[in-house]
Parts: sequence; C-alpha cells; structure tokens
Amino acid sequence: MKQAETISIGAGYYPDHWPRERWHEDINLMKEAGIKVLRLAELSWSFLEPREGEFDFAWLDDFIALASGEGLQIILSTPIEASPVWLRHKHPEVVRTDSFGRIHGDRGMHCHNNSDFIFYVNRIVTKMAKHYANNPAVIGWQIDNELRNVDCYCGECQVAFRNWLKDRYGFLGGLNDAWGTCFWSQVYHEWDEVTLPSADQLTISVSQKLDFTRFGSDSTVNHLNRQVDIIRSYAPHHFITHNMLGWYPKLNAYKLAEKLDFISWDCYPHVDGDNNIECFLHDHYRAVKGKGHWVMEQKNGYFNYSDYNLAIEPGLIRLWTYQDIARGSDGVMYYRWRSNKYSGEQNPNGLLRHDGTPRRPYYEVQQVTNELEKFGSELISTTVEAPVALIYSYDQMWAFEAHVQYKNFDHREHLLTYYRQLTRLGITADLVDPTADLSKYKMVIAPSMAMISDEIHANFTSYAENGGCLIIGARSGMKTWSNTTHEMAWPGLLGEMAGVAVDEFEVLPDKYANSITYNGKDYPVKVWLDMLDTKTAESLATYNEKFYAGRTAISKNNFGKGVVYYAGVMGNSELAYDLLADIAKERNLSVTLLPAGVYVSTRSNEACSYTFYININREPVHVILPEDGVDVIQEKKVSGEVGIEGLDVLIVKFSK
Amino acid sequence: MKQAETISIGAGYYPDHWPRERWHEDINLMKEAGIKVLRLAELSWSFLEPREGEFDFAWLDDFIALASGEGLQIILSTPIEASPVWLRHKHPEVVRTDSFGRIHGDRGMHCHNNSDFIFYVNRIVTKMAKHYANNPAVIGWQIDNELRNVDCYCGECQVAFRNWLKDRYGFLGGLNDAWGTCFWSQVYHEWDEVTLPSADQLTISVSQKLDFTRFGSDSTVNHLNRQVDIIRSYAPHHFITHNMLGWYPKLNAYKLAEKLDFISWDCYPHVDGDNNIECFLHDHYRAVKGKGHWVMEQKNGYFNYSDYNLAIEPGLIRLWTYQDIARGSDGVMYYRWRSNKYSGEQNPNGLLRHDGTPRRPYYEVQQVTNELEKFGSELISTTVEAPVALIYSYDQMWAFEAHVQYKNFDHREHLLTYYRQLTRLGITADLVDPTADLSKYKMVIAPSMAMISDEIHANFTSYAENGGCLIIGARSGMKTWSNTTHEMAWPGLLGEMAGVAVDEFEVLPDKYANSITYNGKDYPVKVWLDMLDTKTAESLATYNEKFYAGRTAISKNNFGKGVVYYAGVMGNSELAYDLLADIAKERNLSVTLLPAGVYVSTRSNEACSYTFYININREPVHVILPEDGVDVIQEKKVSGEVGIEGLDVLIVKFSK
Amino acid sequence: MKQAETISIGAGYYPDHWPRERWHEDINLMKEAGIKVLRLAELSWSFLEPREGEFDFAWLDDFIALASGEGLQIILSTPIEASPVWLRHKHPEVVRTDSFGRIHGDRGMHCHNNSDFIFYVNRIVTKMAKHYANNPAVIGWQIDNELRNVDCYCGECQVAFRNWLKDRYGFLGGLNDAWGTCFWSQVYHEWDEVTLPSADQLTISVSQKLDFTRFGSDSTVNHLNRQVDIIRSYAPHHFITHNMLGWYPKLNAYKLAEKLDFISWDCYPHVDGDNNIECFLHDHYRAVKGKGHWVMEQKNGYFNYSDYNLAIEPGLIRLWTYQDIARGSDGVMYYRWRSNKYSGEQNPNGLLRHDGTPRRPYYEVQQVTNELEKFGSELISTTVEAPVALIYSYDQMWAFEAHVQYKNFDHREHLLTYYRQLTRLGITADLVDPTADLSKYKMVIAPSMAMISDEIHANFTSYAENGGCLIIGARSGMKTWSNTTHEMAWPGLLGEMAGVAVDEFEVLPDKYANSITYNGKDYPVKVWLDMLDTKTAESLATYNEKFYAGRTAISKNNFGKGVVYYAGVMGNSELAYDLLADIAKERNLSVTLLPAGVYVSTRSNEACSYTFYININREPVHVILPEDGVDVIQEKKVSGEVGIEGLDVLIVKFSK
Repeated sequence: MKQAETISIGAGYYPDHWPRERWHEDINLMKEAGIKVLRLAELSWSFLEPREGEFDFAWLDDFIALASGEGLQIILSTPIEASPVWLRHKHPEVVRTDSFGRIHGDRGMHCHNNSDFIFYVNRIVTKMAKHYANNPAVIGWQIDNELRNVDCYCGECQVAFRNWLKDRYGFLGGLNDAWGTCFWSQVYHEWDEVTLPSADQLTISVSQKLDFTRFGSDSTVNHLNRQVDIIRSYAPHHFITHNMLGWYPKLNAYKLAEKLDFISWDCYPHVDGDNNIECFLHDHYRAVKGKGHWVMEQKNGYFNYSDYNLAIEPGLIRLWTYQDIARGSDGVMYYRWRSNKYSGEQNPNGLLRHDGTPRRPYYEVQQVTNELEKFGSELISTTVEAPVALIYSYDQMWAFEAHVQYKNFDHREHLLTYYRQLTRLGITADLVDPTADLSKYKMVIAPSMAMISDEIHANFTSYAENGGCLIIGARSGMKTWSNTTHEMAWPGLLGEMAGVAVDEFEVLPDKYANSITYNGKDYPVKVWLDMLDTKTAESLATYNEKFYAGRTAISKNNFGKGVVYYAGVMGNSELAYDLLADIAKERNLSVTLLPAGVYVSTRSNEACSYTFYININREPVHVILPEDGVDVIQEKKVSGEVGIEGLDVLIVKFSK
Repeated sequence: MKQAETISIGAGYYPDHWPRERWHEDINLMKEAGIKVLRLAELSWSFLEPREGEFDFAWLDDFIALASGEGLQIILSTPIEASPVWLRHKHPEVVRTDSFGRIHGDRGMHCHNNSDFIFYVNRIVTKMAKHYANNPAVIGWQIDNELRNVDCYCGECQVAFRNWLKDRYGFLGGLNDAWGTCFWSQVYHEWDEVTLPSADQLTISVSQKLDFTRFGSDSTVNHLNRQVDIIRSYAPHHFITHNMLGWYPKLNAYKLAEKLDFISWDCYPHVDGDNNIECFLHDHYRAVKGKGHWVMEQKNGYFNYSDYNLAIEPGLIRLWTYQDIARGSDGVMYYRWRSNKYSGEQNPNGLLRHDGTPRRPYYEVQQVTNELEKFGSELISTTVEAPVALIYSYDQMWAFEAHVQYKNFDHREHLLTYYRQLTRLGITADLVDPTADLSKYKMVIAPSMAMISDEIHANFTSYAENGGCLIIGARSGMKTWSNTTHEMAWPGLLGEMAGVAVDEFEVLPDKYANSITYNGKDYPVKVWLDMLDTKTAESLATYNEKFYAGRTAISKNNFGKGVVYYAGVMGNSELAYDLLADIAKERNLSVTLLPAGVYVSTRSNEACSYTFYININREPVHVILPEDGVDVIQEKKVSGEVGIEGLDVLIVKFSK
Repeated sequence: MKQAETISIGAGYYPDHWPRERWHEDINLMKEAGIKVLRLAELSWSFLEPREGEFDFAWLDDFIALASGEGLQIILSTPIEASPVWLRHKHPEVVRTDSFGRIHGDRGMHCHNNSDFIFYVNRIVTKMAKHYANNPAVIGWQIDNELRNVDCYCGECQVAFRNWLKDRYGFLGGLNDAWGTCFWSQVYHEWDEVTLPSADQLTISVSQKLDFTRFGSDSTVNHLNRQVDIIRSYAPHHFITHNMLGWYPKLNAYKLAEKLDFISWDCYPHVDGDNNIECFLHDHYRAVKGKGHWVMEQKNGYFNYSDYNLAIEPGLIRLWTYQDIARGSDGVMYYRWRSNKYSGEQNPNGLLRHDGTPRRPYYEVQQVTNELEKFGSELISTTVEAPVALIYSYDQMWAFEAHVQYKNFDHREHLLTYYRQLTRLGITADLVDPTADLSKYKMVIAPSMAMISDEIHANFTSYAENGGCLIIGARSGMKTWSNTTHEMAWPGLLGEMAGVAVDEFEVLPDKYANSITYNGKDYPVKVWLDMLDTKTAESLATYNEKFYAGRTAISKNNFGKGVVYYAGVMGNSELAYDLLADIAKERNLSVTLLPAGVYVSTRSNEACSYTFYININREPVHVILPEDGVDVIQEKKVSGEVGIEGLDVLIVKFSK
C-alpha cells in the first residue's frame, strides 16, 4: 500500500448504470471538480456475473481504462451486498432466517455462515482479485458494503453457534456456569440441546443473547476476512478497507478492522443536526486502527430514507468535508456522482442532476479541491493525537440490549452526555475499547461499564495505579463478562479502585428527579442514581432529597499513583461539564473555550499543526487563537481574535 | 335496465337471519316507512349453498314472493364476500396468502386468482343468475361486497403476476428497463426469477411494488367482471353495480366500473365529521361513470368498529340522505333494516331495534320518503354538472405508497386541501382520472402528479393548449409511469407547459415552516416546497426565508390558448383558497359565498335546476339565493336571504 | 391440613442455586429474621429430573433435613413452569402454538392439552408426591407457578376445543345458534369444520373468541387439577395452593380455586403506587374461597421487568406485609431470600445481597416477626367480613376483550372507580362472581355486566327481591351468555328489576363530555352514557346537554323488598363517591372517614376485632378511633384521635 500524496477526494460511480457514450463527459466533469479517486463495482454482481459462473469484467475494464487514462485512481468494491437474483432463486437460504424460521430480510441481509453463499462470494472475489491485481489504476478495495450483524437463525448458524460456544467455554459445564442455566432450570446436558435464541425457545437467557450477538458479529468479521485473505493473496500491494455504517453498534469495529489497512465509514449528517454525532464517530473510527481513516460515502444530496428532507444550505458540503479531514480522515469520497433514477434512492442525491448537469454541491467540491491544492500534501502527513479516551465497549452495549433493564437508559446518549462536554471544552477524545492501551491518555472516561472482565479490570488497574485518571460512570462493575452478576458487593470488580460500595440505587422515570450538591452548586439528576458508601474514597457530591439525602453521589479515590472518580449519577449535562472541567484543570489538560456550535480539532506532525475551527452556526462567530498562525485557505497570517463566517471553516497552521 | 321513476329509497335486509313468522311484519313496517327497494342475499352463501353443490333458493324465493307482493323491488347481491366454512375447510388456499407465505386474512380476503375459488364463485353466480333472471321483482345485482385488493402472495398469484408483466412489458429486457433493475444489481435473466414482492425477496423495487398493486387491483377487477359477464349473459335486462368502500384507494374504481351500469358506495359518516369526506367521495364516484350513482349502504345506526360512538342526533339521517342525493345519488339504501344480534356488529345499527320496534331513524326515513313524494320523480331526471375537475389518480397514490418518501405527505389530505376550498367557494368538482376528457372543465387541478405517462402528458397538453386552465401542485412531473425518475430537469414532462424548472426543494417536518408572499400577503408553507426557476412563466409568489428567499413558489405560464399554474407549495389552506378564488374569478367561474358548514350543489336538467343547501351546523344559518325559486319541501316560493335550521336542508327549484 | 398457629412468615429459597457450604449460614440468617416457612423446588425440574426419567431428590432431601432440623417448615412447588431443556428438545410441541401455527412463547407457556407434556408432568408430580408425602417438614404444596391461559392453537387443542364445545352445546345446531353463525354466513355443518380462532380463519366470531378464552382457562384449570389429584392421593394431609399472578383476568380464579385448600397470589406493589390495586386483589382472592389466602411472593427488592426502578423506602416492606395481613392473608412469603445472579432477574431482589449479607429489608422483616410474636397467634383465628360485594366476572371481561367495542373502556379501571370510593368510605368489599351467594351483603355493585345468564338473572333477582340493594352500572344486561345480543329492549334481562329501558347511548372519546345533575350538583361524565327511559323506576339524575338533556342518567327502582339502582354513566369518581355514600347511608353501612392514603380494614372473630390503619403517606396522619382499644404493636391503650407516622401502621384491638 503506497502512501497517498494528499488528501484523497473522490466519488462513488456506477458505470454500469449509464450508457458508455456518457462516460467521457462524466470523467471530464470529474476532472474539472478536482476528483481524483472513484469507487466502482459496488453493488454490481449482476453485471460482473450475469449468470451463474459467467463472468463479464469487460465493461469495467473499459471504464477503468478510460478513467485511468485521465488520471483517475480506482477503488474496487467487492459487489457482495447486492446478491444477484439468480443466486437467491437457486439458493433461497443464502438470505438470513429470522427467529421464527422465516427467510426474511432486506438488502444485504445474507447469512454469513451459509456454505453456498460462502462458495459464490469466494469465487467472485477470487475472480476479481486475480483480474485486477495488476491493473495499475486500482489502488485498493472496499470489502462488501455497510456490513451488518444479521441475526440469522438458520441451521448452519445453529451448528456454527455451537462450535463458537465450544471454543469459548470448552465444555458444557463451563457454558452452564457462565450463563447461569440453573436459573429457571435451563441446564444443558448435551451440546445438541443448545440452540440459537429462536422464538420457540420459551426461556432465553440474557447471557445467551449476549453470546449470540457476539457470535453474529464474529460471523460477519469472518465473512469480511475471507474476502480480505483472498485479495491479499493476489494483490498485497492494494489497500483494503470497509465502509461502516455510521452508528451501528451491533458489529464490533475493533475486530472487524483487524485485517484491514484502515477503516472507512459512510457519513450522512442531518442538515439540522449539530456535528457531535459525526465527530463522535470520527473519533471512534480513527481510534479503532489508531490512524487515518476514510469517509467512503460523504453525503452530498437529499436523503433517501427519511421522514423529511431539508435542502442542503450553501457551504454545508464543504463544511462536512473539512469536518471529516479535521477529525483524521485522509480520504473523502462523495456519494454519489450522479443522481440515481431507480427504486428507493431517487432523490437528487448526486453531484450531478438526473439530467447530467452539475448541481450546487458540485461547485462546493470544486472549491474544496482547489483549496486543498494549497495544503493537502502537507496535511496528509499529519494525524490527530487525542489526550483523552472515552471507553466505547461493544460488548457492554450488547449486554444491555440483551437485558434492557431500564427504558430511559440509552447507551449512545449516555456516551454523548460526556462527549458533548469535551466538545465544549475543545478537547478531542479517542473512543477506544476498554482493553486498549490507555497509558497515553491524561484522562479516561468509562461511562456505565456494567460488565468488567479480568482483562479490563487489569487494564484499568494498571492505568490508574500508574498515575492515570479514571472516571467511572453509574451502573458499573457488578456484572461478569457473561452478563451475570458477581457474587460480591457492587460495583464489583471496580469497588477497590473506586473505594466505594454501591448499596442501593434508583432508576427514575422522566417524571421524577433527585438533586445533588457538587462544589456548592445544585444539579437535578435522573435516569440512574447510585448511592455510594465511601470506603477509602472522598465524597465530592451528595444527594439532597429522599431517604438517602446526604449519601455520596460522586466520589474520588486515590489509587496507586493515580486517581479514580465514581460519578454515580446520570442525566445532567451541566454537571458533566463542570466535573470534566474541574478534572481537566487538575490534570493540566489544555482547554479551548469556544462559542457554541464551533468544533475544534488539530492534526499535527513533528513540524507543525493544523487547527480546524468549524462553525456550524448560520451566523458568524469569533474565536481566539492560542498563538500566531497562518490561515491556510486565505493564505494570510492570523492572530488573536479571528472571525469565521456562518457555515464556514478556519484552518490555522501553527509551527512547532 | 329500466329507468327508475324516482329516487330509489331502500334498505339492506337479511331474511335468512329472522324467522319467517316475522317477515310479514317487517314488510309492513318497510311500506309504512316508504321503503321501496331491498337488497337481499348479501353474505348468504351458507344459506344458498349449505353444502358443496347443494343449492337452496327456496327461502329466498319465498321471501321475494312475499315482498314483491307488497310492491317491493329486489336487488340481489352475489354472496361471495363471506365464503362458507365448508369451502375454506376443503380448500384453505382460497384465502389470500400474506407476504410471509401465511394463509391469513379477515372477512372477504379471498385470493382472486385461486382457481378453486373461481370455480365455486362462477358456479353459484351462474345458479343465481339463471334462477332469478326472470323473476320480475328483481331489478338488479350487486356484485360481491366492498371488494378489496388483498395483496395475495400465493403460487397462483405468482404465475398470474408474471403473465401480467409479460402482457405489460413484452420481454424481460423491457421489465428490467422499466423497473431499473440495474439498481442494486437485481437484473432478471429468466422470467422464473421474477417473483411477487414477498418478504424473502431481500430487495424489493418500488417499481415492482407499484406493479404489484396494479396487478392486485386488476385481479380484483377480473374477479368482478367474471361475475358481471355471467349475470349479463342470463339477465341483460337487470342492472349491475358494486358497492365500494368509501375511501379505499387500493382498487382502481375507473377500471372496476367499466362493465358496471353504475357504481355504488357505502357511506358511513362520522357524527362529528364535516361533510367534506363524503362529498369528496360522491364527487369521485359520480365522475367515475359520469352519471348517477347509488349509496348502497347509508349509515343509520351506531358504528360497529370504532374507538367511540356518538349518538346520532335528530335530523342527521335525513341530512345525510339529502347530501347523497344532492351530489348525484339516484338511490339511497339504508344499512340496515333491523339491528343485528351477532358477532362483531351488535350495536343498535338498524332502523329497527333488536326487539323489532322502530328506532328514531326509522321516522326520519319516513319523513324523507314523504318529502320525496313531492319532487323525487322530477329529481330523478336531473344530474350534477361540475365545472371543475380535480385529478384523482390511483396509480399516483400507489406509486407514493410503494415509495413513501416523506412521512408528512398524505395524499388524501393534499387533495382535500384543494377540495375544501372548492366547498367554501360553492364550486362542485368532478374527481377524475388524469386521462379523462378534460375539455368540458373551466379549471383542472392536478395536485402532486409525480408520475406522468405520455398519455397524461398529451391529455394535459391538449387541454391547456386549447384554452384550459391547469393548476399543477408541488412534487409533480419528474417520474415515469413505472415509478422511476426521468433523465431530465424537474418537473420532467410538465416542465414545458409549466414554463419552470424545479432545481431544489425542501420537505419540512412539523417543527419547521417557510413563508411565501402572494399578492402582497404572507402565508406560512410546509410539507413540500419546490424552488422554481421561471423559464417562460411569470412568478406569482416568492419565498421569504432561508437561502432561497426570493425564488419562485407559484408560477403562471401562458401555454397555447390556455394557462398553466404551478403551485410549488403545500400545507396552507388559506393560500389554496385565495389562489383558487383568484383563478376562479379569472376563469369566470360562478362562486357562492356560504356560511361555514353549509354545502351547496345543484342537480339540473334542461328545464330546471334543484339547488341543495345542506346545513351541517347545529345552529341555524342564512343563505342568499341567486334568484327567486321554490322551496320544494315547504312547497313555497323563496327569494333573497333564507334561513335554514340546524341540521336541516333547503332544496330550491329554479326554472331555466 | 393442620390449622396454623400464627400468621406464617416465610421466603422463597433455591438451595439448587447455592453451594451446600452456604446452606447453614442461610438457615441461621432465616432464623434470626423470624422466618419459619420456606418454599422450595419451584423451577427446579432440571435438578429433580436432570435427564429424562432420571430423578434426583437427594439434594432436596438434604436441604430439607438441614432446614427442618432448625425448625423450618417446607412448602414444595411442583416445578412445572420451567420445563427442562431435554423435554423441549425431544418434544418441541410441549410449547404452545400461536395463532399463526408457530411454536412460540416465553417462560411457562406450555400447551396444557399436549399429551406428552401431561405424561411428563404427571410423572414428576407423582414421584415428588410419593417421595415427600411422609416428610414431616413438608406442610403443603404450591402447584406450578403463576399459571397463565396460553392461547394455544395446536392440533391437540383443536380436538380438545371441539370436545369442549360438544360438552357445552351438545349438537352443532346449538353451537350455530349460540354463536349466531348465520352472521356473515359462517354456519357449520360438520364438527370437523369447527376450528380454533386461528389467523387463517378469515372470519372469527366474537362468540367463538369468548368460548376459546373459556376453553383456555378451563384447560389450565384441568392442568392444575391433574396435579392436585395426584398430590391429594398421596398426601391428603398436606395443603395445596397455587400462586396467582396479581392482576391476570385471563384465568378464572373461581374455577381454579375449586380443588385448592386456599388460594395464594404474588404481590409486587409499585413504590409509587397507592395501595388500591393490591387491596382490590386481596379482596378478590380472599373472596374466591371465602377464607384466608396467602401471599406466596411478597416483593422485597427491585423490580426485574420494569421501565424504571424506585428505591424501596424504609418502612415499605413492613407496611406491605401488614397490608397483606389486614386484608385476610394468613401467610406472607417474601420473594426472595437472596438476590439472584442470573439472566433476567439480576437486580438486588433478595432479603440478602448478591454477596450474601443482609439488605435493609431483612431488618424490616425481623421487626415484623418480632411484632407478630405479640398478637399473631390470636390474629390467625380472625377473618375479614365484608359488608359489600363488588361483582368481578371473568366471563364479562373476556366477552369485552373478544369484542373490544370502545377503546376508552377499561374493565379494571371501571371496577376501580367504584372500588376506590369504597376505600375512601372505609368500607371493605368482597370481589365475587355474579353467581355467588349475595344474601349476606348489604350492598352489591355490578358495574358493566353486559352478559347476563339465566343463572345470574335469577341470583340478582333473588337478592334484590329479598331486600338487597343492587347497583347496576352502565352498558349492562343486553347480551346473552354467548356474547350475542338479546332480542329484547336494553338492558335486556336486567330491564325489569331496574325498571328502565335504555333506548340510546353515547360512547365518548377523551375530547368530549356531557354532564349530569344529581342531588342538585353537576358532574361531568364520559366514556359511556346510557339514556334511560324510566318505566317503574324513579329518576335520580338527568343529563344537562345535547338532544337528550333531561333524560335520566341514574335511576332507582323498588323491586320486591329491595332496591335496584341503574347508574348509566361512567368516568366520574366524585359522582361514584357521592352516590355510594348516599346509598351506604340509606343502607346503614358503617362508614369511616379517613385521611387520603389511609387504608382501613378489620379482621375479627367472635371475641374481638383487629382494625388495621395503614398509612401509605410519607407524612404522619391522624385517625379517629370508633371506640377505645389497644394498640397491639405498642401494647398500649388508645382512644379518640391517634397519630400514625408516615409509612407506618396502627393495629387496634377492640373487644366485642
């Protein structure tokens, strides 16, 4: 895989959808817009293998020849998501089976353990890999498209699940213990009795459900890795990536990314959203591999599946692009080149209209590529280095989903409560797995980690003991890694480092709240309230109401060379802000006070840094620069207070 | 079919539900109420063919003999909707199969392509037609009951669907092109690969869904026509009709009505509704055949399937009856004669109580029949002539349903926005197909016609070029007749006649609005906003907010001898009223200014006209007559300002 | 069955979930808390019969030996609810089949007519009964657990349903008549045509649905009785009970209790609920057998299946316990002893924590058992004698459920409207079947009895004629016992005793109301309003609005030596209170005026009475004693006005 020379700007294109006569005009328009990379062959199985075993790559060869002649680089997608009709007609069971035994799904919902499906996937991927391994225009591959964990309940999955469990637990007794099958008398005596959690099971264990989600995620990872292995074997010089759905917690991105060169994701912001969701996902996908990721589909037109559809205001496409780059993307591919005419995606969703003429976003892309001419080649050598980690644990979310105890608890919202305060403080975070190396972070926030494995316990202990600062959120520590409860005082394995015991709690519906006093200020709290008994910890905040008034809500415990906070309350943003601001100060974290709606992040290398100020407001704002620098778009020196227009971007280069 | 001598007033009766000893008393009570027509044999299959192949018409013959002896006329229903238990017990597959392959439905949901069902239906209809063809009491037939498009996914429907598609597209390439199967790689290579859009299909095209609805509607029409053909062959002197559900857009009434003598519908107004829904449906079903229709079931009691049930206030039954007649009904049949004792319809829903004594509505019917004695025989020679057409396109609604792009868009509500303003202006409209002869209309309103076929394009062009006035609503013109997008600037085929291009749009959720200025007045607008570039058109209204402030929202284009408006906004009734009022004035349409809650319409012949003023208010109102006339109920001359009591009706005869 | 010597206090325990080494410590902690009874073997089938036909009672024998050695008494549960995996693996069809033919359910949803299931159930129950019949520690049995009517649609249920119908209707003509199958032409000609109301039936009769619910309830009763018979045959000296779900109207408790010694129920109050629901259920389950019942599971920890989870405030566990006893419970078993670690019930839900140490509720239980030492042995000889009956008819609720006519009508809420006013008046009611002996009650309230059988008619007639006072609620009397309508004026069979005819009615949605005047005071009324024509009755209240203003809403009729009220309105608590207060006064019923949130009831024997004042308020209240008495907890004399702390209980003994 060759290092790119600048930020890659490209688009998704379907030569199979348009007449050959049009190809040349499209390529010319691409060149004029500064587009350098195309993604092709995505969803083209019907054209690459029109009938079983009959392969036709000629049309794609022809297009690639034409495009590469004009300097365009090619990313090929394995066309697996949209299986051809002939395949499902011959093998209906390549489609996933639902919990009632019905073959049923929508686009891409194939069984990843179906042996027929695996045969056909392997064959077409092998054919493509062989055919394009030495095509100089091809720089890399996207495996499949927006993969999902499809919850398949077919017979092959049943067998695969048993094998997965045998690998995990070794013998049946281990499974019975881990799942606690004594509960409700569901002890297994033969492996054949172990089933998928299908609708006819009568009594489904929350541990079984968690393991089924793990198994499903692993099955999808295997499906991806089988394709990765084939392509690597023929084209080791090509990069391989996958484009993740934005927020899709059912698939473990850490595992999925293991064999990839980098990870990509598809970014479809809401016109009336703030940028927090997208930054949150950038900060996660960047951290998954610990290096530059791509946006493989950047929205540039109307939504196709939406209750409503706001017009995309002038400036937004450019702003979204710089937001991608600011958070670490080294490539931004627009979706899509020309508006589609068919089926469920008929909105004006391309840089071109249905009639082939440029839409407004086309000219914004042109502006971006012109601007990147000035500094893109330096920017590509920079990376985002975050001083803070926010723990993002897939297993944790699955465990809660397998056992939804409290309606008002929303994992993403809980993470975002902390994330949004970091945004306000101008602090960038990595969203990492609880087993990640935490030693480089000045602060680690672990909201609601109910399940703690020995490995996580050791990792957290090591981090804190060696001088780290760990903030544990409410509803933490009491569960085993199999979603059962530890036979110990709550918060279980986290009790010693936190220096507290959680004797009781309340989970409040919307209509109720309590309040706490922290640093002399009162805050209403709701959702989940842990009542802490401080053992070795200091009490930082106490409850004000009900029978547990005076008991501790937030604690701080010195542990080894470090410090562990337990924030036993949820649902108050101002509290989260004040708490994080105080801890950041204590930890000497650099804080940037920003106007609301301004997103700051920095890419740097050994010589310099680029700080991006993204103004999502429709009105101008002012920001104060920490030192003198250069506005690389305007190519002028800037210092002190600098204005940014509405929906505009300021990129300042600082020397080191 | 013999011309009726007066407005037909009747009721639905079930002699099979009551002891013979009671028949005579019922017939006497009917006569006293002025009831002249009975509908019989509806839902009586179990009694006409109690066991397979054993027919028993004796009980029905006896009742008809008794009733006709007392002067009652008979409409027979083919008893198909409620198939007998023995039939489903022997052939479970006569019931429709759902998209998951389950035999599943409720009353009447039979598969209209099932060969067994067709056999049994044809046989009993043949038997009845033969038996009653020469019974002098029988005047006509109702085919089946409230037919529905049942979305059947059985094997016979699969075969029939493929044949339907072969008829439509000729060869598979035509189908692939029309549906755009290149999208998501769903190209068909064999006819056998083409399936119904069942749940296991993985990727269902919105074009396929549209064609499936068309196919389902056609299947139901065929089911009806098979019965029509049988009856016609034996009893060509009898009329044949069908009773449509009120608002039921899944079945194309234009096609369904083709072989019928006239169309009927079942009218169940809400006590607290206004009359617009019912008038809207009258104006549609009248226009379907372009002549007098019937109300085959006029509600006269408590609802059976409702969240709540208001008492029917004194006067309402009579008011509903005159509303039916005022909009063109030549027959009104009450549902039902005596309140039913069984199963899901046990409310007091008859003109008689469960105990056989008259309920309050009985006496209102008696009043109506007494009044009609005075002028019914002249009224029957009159018809409603509407000066305006509102386009009501089934395919258009199905296309949107197959591809629900925007939650807040409701087809009926969108049509009603225009319809209600016509009511306020006292203008009667025909609700017609876009291919109907439009030349007789002074104004044609075509709200949201996204799909435009060449035939519709030619019809609209011809209408406008020859001096017509066409009002096109937002979200129009960009789609082919197969629910894909034209490769041309929006509004596609309507662009030239409208003289505009639609470059962008917004679809707003409830929380947002923009506003426009039209004729110096501001109007908030929402739902869908098209931003128009005027080419040859004049701008009548512009947007006030956001980046497209100043762009055109409503345009007017001279086209041939006519004029074409494009009203690119939705969701504001006052705007629709002002716009229609202005255009009506320009087109010299006669406008009647009415108090709210008063519904006016006119039946006329060459000699005279009858104008109905229906006051749905609970309080008295005054109306101003356009000239001197005769109040035909009070039998007195009236002129100038005339009062109408709450829930009362004024019918004025004007001479020509 | 031996008479208990005091109120039994116990807990549910699972020796199969914890190591033997722990057993002794648990037993010691139980003794210290004053716990005397344990429920064992519930949900232990996997441990009692780990493989098909291999029985292992040794572990249970060992535990019982240890516990009984320390004086604990044992209730054994038949472990049927949680069938072992091996059984369902071998016989999947022991799980109920849903209306689409899918084997599908959750815990305990076994088919009660499945012959395999019956075989295995009978065998293990027989084994247990034989084995424990002569174990002196065992005092009784709980059959199964929280039984449900599972709506099974399997083949064996189909056959059983036909047999059930043959028993009920004798011949097919009787069935056709009772269900009114002439409606919609669904006449049966062969028994084989009669099916369960499965999803493919097309036309399901509301009478069929009602009978299906009756059949399902009877099937569950048979399932219970088979087990009762086995245990009785081996251990006639043991008591047998069943623990009902709290509010679970799908199972007829009167029939279920017939063969039991007493009935139990599982009481899980909401922390923020008032006590009315629990008192309502106590008053029902006490009345079902007409004697002391048990609470087999009294909540003592966090909910497991809840949208939210409030902490249980200090005092609530004790308060709930006394509330149980106050309403007639002779035994209270806490659920559960130690907090569970596995699957869906992992909250701190035990008297002990997960780590085995006592939680706060443990000490409240200790307080209760200490207090009961003083007066429990006398209390056990007392019973609750209610002066009023509230009719609670399962068939009635099923009939409405089979034919949900009006969304806003909620049976429980309708009963509770009356029940809550009795609470406010300090009057205790028995909730009894309409066929119960009513002669002992001073007042009988029968809200919404739409179906009246001849037996009920005779019972009501006899009660009223002999001097009773019957209050009939709206929507009553018009239906047969098969859920069809009588061919007579409404309120049907109740017309004569009520002295009214109901000619019309309104069923109002939330947005509408009418009002009535009763005793000079106006009350808004909604939901259902009957318009009464008084025949022999006197009008007590009339409507104020709409066309029926002035017509009667509430009537009073002298009938024989008694009086019958017809309260034709719903949905106003104040009206219900004033009406009941007036009638109570007229009937010389003793009324206790209480502060809101105080629940009073009395247990008495021939010598004395114990009156319980339960204060659910968080603040202190005062109550006024009717005479001098003894506070049996404080062991002091009390008289006049006495204070009760928040969440506290006052128990006063009065001598007779």
